[in-house]
Amino acid sequence: MEQGKAAVGWAARDSSGALSPYSFSRRAQEDADVTIKVLYCGICHTDLHIIKNDWSNAMYPVVPGHEIVGVVTDVGAGVKKFKAGDKVGVGYFVMSCRSCECCGKGYENYCSKMVTTCNSIDHDHDGAVTQGGFSDVIVVDEYYVLRVPAGLPLDSTAPLLCAGVTVYSPMVQHGLNSPGKHLGVVGLGGLGHVAVKFGKAFGMRVTVISTSPGKRQEALEHLGADEFLVSRDQEQMAAAAGTMDGIIDTVSAWHPITPLFSLMKPMGQIVFVGGPTKPLELPAYAIVPGGKGIAGTCVGGIRDCQAMLDFAGEHGITAEVEVINIDYVNTALERLEKNDVRYRFVIDVAGSLGSGAA
Amino acid sequence: MEQGKAAVGWAARDSSGALSPYSFSRRAQEDADVTIKVLYCGICHTDLHIIKNDWSNAMYPVVPGHEIVGVVTDVGAGVKKFKAGDKVGVGYFVMSCRSCECCGKGYENYCSKMVTTCNSIDHDHDGAVTQGGFSDVIVVDEYYVLRVPAGLPLDSTAPLLCAGVTVYSPMVQHGLNSPGKHLGVVGLGGLGHVAVKFGKAFGMRVTVISTSPGKRQEALEHLGADEFLVSRDQEQMAAAAGTMDGIIDTVSAWHPITPLFSLMKPMGQIVFVGGPTKPLELPAYAIVPGGKGIAGTCVGGIRDCQAMLDFAGEHGITAEVEVINIDYVNTALERLEKNDVRYRFVIDVAGSLGSGAA
Repeated sequence: MEQGKAAVGWAARDSSGALSPYSFSRRAQEDADVTIKVLYCGICHTDLHIIKNDWSNAMYPVVPGHEIVGVVTDVGAGVKKFKAGDKVGVGYFVMSCRSCECCGKGYENYCSKMVTTCNSIDHDHDGAVTQGGFSDVIVVDEYYVLRVPAGLPLDSTAPLLCAGVTVYSPMVQHGLNSPGKHLGVVGLGGLGHVAVKFGKAFGMRVTVISTSPGKRQEALEHLGADEFLVSRDQEQMAAAAGTMDGIIDTVSAWHPITPLFSLMKPMGQIVFVGGPTKPLELPAYAIVPGGKGIAGTCVGGIRDCQAMLDFAGEHGITAEVEVINIDYVNTALERLEKNDVRYRFVIDVAGSLGSGAA
Repeated sequence: MEQGKAAVGWAARDSSGALSPYSFSRRAQEDADVTIKVLYCGICHTDLHIIKNDWSNAMYPVVPGHEIVGVVTDVGAGVKKFKAGDKVGVGYFVMSCRSCECCGKGYENYCSKMVTTCNSIDHDHDGAVTQGGFSDVIVVDEYYVLRVPAGLPLDSTAPLLCAGVTVYSPMVQHGLNSPGKHLGVVGLGGLGHVAVKFGKAFGMRVTVISTSPGKRQEALEHLGADEFLVSRDQEQMAAAAGTMDGIIDTVSAWHPITPLFSLMKPMGQIVFVGGPTKPLELPAYAIVPGGKGIAGTCVGGIRDCQAMLDFAGEHGITAEVEVINIDYVNTALERLEKNDVRYRFVIDVAGSLGSGAA
């Protein structure tokens, strides 16, 4: 067997989550594989959960990162879609069974054999534990590699690979992508601010719903939202009752969802992306008389992810980012934990990850 | 203005909910109206809520009943779909605006101006309070009158007008009507037993989920379900995990729904019909990783109701009923409150409502 490729990254070694330089080896490039020099990698809240072992599944050392943008340096003999020099992205997962019902419908993200980009056992490749994009190189089956449209800045495109598709996919799935419809976006963080941009690009009326009155100006003037509702202001909420076709709820902390149902027209759907540990409260009266619903969602399939990138390319949509060097990553993770970021950290991997790390 | 038609029914006069004979007047038949001699009327749990003023909106005297089957005795000059002698049905509502988004999409049941068949103010007809089908005659705009297919027994067809469409409409809406799919039905009462029949007629695999092990034989042998799960049996539940495409939950009492999400495949939907007063508990982990959801539903539109009746006609589907005389109605209501009915009471209105009641 051909030997793997030497790689350098930053890894967490224990549940402190502190990252430090780490040398490891990528698998040898196989026929269907693309070798990618990582240029930028976004930092997602999920990375924080994984490296701190919040989900009790960390397999240290863990190199996090699944919002990867890079350039193809080499391709396997069977690769058809890519060639060296192509600008590409890799998102939340790098393998799935491609034969189950979910894969067949284009929702590899729900495949029970889906292999995430980091901290996952890759049974199709010797059972190695996957390592993410906080590293200089990655080898990925071309099926899970996305084409980055020309013209998009590569740094601010990186978060689209997870945050972008996580809101875009359910918007399309639930018909929240039609001009004239009214979309509510709860929470104006890494996911919410991208949802606002997609909503406006779809031609929708977009209302941001937030606990923070201070975000009004940002939402309306900078992100282009049409309206801003303070969720604790009962008068504002009552005035908006029954006006929305659907809502994307991106807030991770526990919060009441009953008032959100009131904002929607009959048959409206809340798309729920967050992960509070305490169960949500769902009164039957909030959903039964109006035929309303709530559906969870988790990233998106490859087809949706490519469609999202193409759509972003056409409309010039990227995330708002704070680009950092890799040696700032531990500070960035601390700030992320306190939601102190506007709106997404992106690591300039190629520009700051020295080849001399050990 | 032409004088209304004398009618005789049984009405509740106060929150005791006790019904007694009541003489009143139906509106004069207008151009679009159909006059119907009521033959049978089912008793729905909603009737119980209304007459006992559980929802604090009873306008006594209240003649309940919205699962009506009868025969047309007269039609207005503008009526196109019906003629005297036709066998027809009337369901949960008798008027809607027919111009809003819901009406336009065929979901008059979610129209904000929808007028229910009883205990509702009919603004389009002098603001009179509507009176339901526990009465000898009813006058209804033809738009809200359904054709009963030939060959269906009229008594056991009556519950289809509410219980039937309440399960049929969301099954169609959520794609739970395809051969080979696996449907879970929670609760084997008036709605659940009809859902099992529709599911089997759609060619689906149907599993009943119940707290009562004693219903197994009935579910499998009499109603034709494929499997039966006791919801408190964790081994049975674990063995069925991830197998269902969707679930119809018809249980009104509060119950945990988290185990139901586990039974479904990714992207599965729970359709929720019941109305517990205590909020349901909805953990994010139950819906987010698998992209699952829960949606409320309330009866169905006119188009779905007619489609449901036509489908029932083709497949010989009716409810399992206990036919009673009107003078048994108070006892029947008491028994219904204790869920002591298999599966729906239907009043033989024409056969037992004497014209001499006062």
